[in-house]
Amino acid sequence: MSDLVVYGNYLSQPGRSLMSFCKLSGIEFKYHNLNAFNGEHLTEEYTKINPFQSFPAIVHNGFNVWETGAILVYLADAYNVDNQWYPKDIKLRARIDAYIHWHHQNVREPLLDYIMVKYGPKAHEGGGLTEETEAPFKARLQQWYETFTWVLSETHYVARTPTATIADILAFNELFNAQMINIDLDSHPAIKAWYEEIASIPQVQELCPQAQEIIRNLTSSH
Amino acid sequence: MSDLVVYGNYLSQPGRSLMSFCKLSGIEFKYHNLNAFNGEHLTEEYTKINPFQSFPAIVHNGFNVWETGAILVYLADAYNVDNQWYPKDIKLRARIDAYIHWHHQNVREPLLDYIMVKYGPKAHEGGGLTEETEAPFKARLQQWYETFTWVLSETHYVARTPTATIADILAFNELFNAQMINIDLDSHPAIKAWYEEIASIPQVQELCPQAQEIIRNLTSSH
Repeated sequence: MSDLVVYGNYLSQPGRSLMSFCKLSGIEFKYHNLNAFNGEHLTEEYTKINPFQSFPAIVHNGFNVWETGAILVYLADAYNVDNQWYPKDIKLRARIDAYIHWHHQNVREPLLDYIMVKYGPKAHEGGGLTEETEAPFKARLQQWYETFTWVLSETHYVARTPTATIADILAFNELFNAQMINIDLDSHPAIKAWYEEIASIPQVQELCPQAQEIIRNLTSSH
Repeated sequence: MSDLVVYGNYLSQPGRSLMSFCKLSGIEFKYHNLNAFNGEHLTEEYTKINPFQSFPAIVHNGFNVWETGAILVYLADAYNVDNQWYPKDIKLRARIDAYIHWHHQNVREPLLDYIMVKYGPKAHEGGGLTEETEAPFKARLQQWYETFTWVLSETHYVARTPTATIADILAFNELFNAQMINIDLDSHPAIKAWYEEIASIPQVQELCPQAQEIIRNLTSSH
């Protein structure tokens, strides 16, 4: 019997995406929650699992893997996955892989940089955001809406695939957390329609309440 | 007979890496040079190949792929590659894939951001770099030397694999172009020893003179 442990945190966008992928692919796992606010990702024990101290990471039959994009491929191969979320077809994989590489600096970074400057550990060192210091993040978000609407325009899915894939789930979770920076979906109907479709996938939806609770605590204390 | 065209530019770090990978794996290709200084990556024709207008991209038997990380996996699968540069072993692939995902924001971005601010299209809009505006880029580079030395410390290779892989070639090419920001390898002997080893791979080395010529032209006009 194979033994899989996922180390993550419900606030983590890639962590939730990875767990949804396992659930959608019938991959059983144990979940080990890392409380990042208590530095549980910085312990000597976890550093042996992921030397970069980021999360999620997995241990599968004693072998550790970090970086969500690498974990997904490893699990898909180890568990012989071939479903709409990550098919074996090399052309579909090429589209999905291209999105996941693009995602880092073009979806995750613009949204997360804004969240971090507003709620991250260093958010209050400079006395909080002013209209002036927030302006470049707002401007980048405005540009991002346009880019993301364009990305969805070909097939309605982020990786330009005919159906939703793990790429959409990764993107969805970044947008879910971006409620912390008041992401405005009502003014962007193509993004909203896609968002609501991905949000309705039960294996995606079921992880949102736990994230919502952490977000509520974080934002109400500001 | 399979038909592969690589669209790229010799100044492009991922483009050179991709071509070296093909050469090391016995994958024959035609090379289509894109002169980015003339906007050849912005044409309607190229936008059909890569809607993001970045390079490299490939067309293989009529199918287009963009994003180097996705192209590598696609070609490895399409050509049944199983060598030290990108082996089929899923554990080794997991290490290499993890590096390639990490590479975007932790190797390529800190080095390329500095190059772009010094030599990119907008470099002279603000009248060139001053000691003050250059300082944060220098500081980030100093930190980067430490991180990269640590990354190499486990196995001497960037993906923590027992031999050099495509991950090392991708990293090498970023450092090669970073001569434009006077990257200092002499003060960082572990990086220098690794760099010289990767530089000595004939299929890596043979693409450097073309890049060197473009760099010479770019830097001498400043």
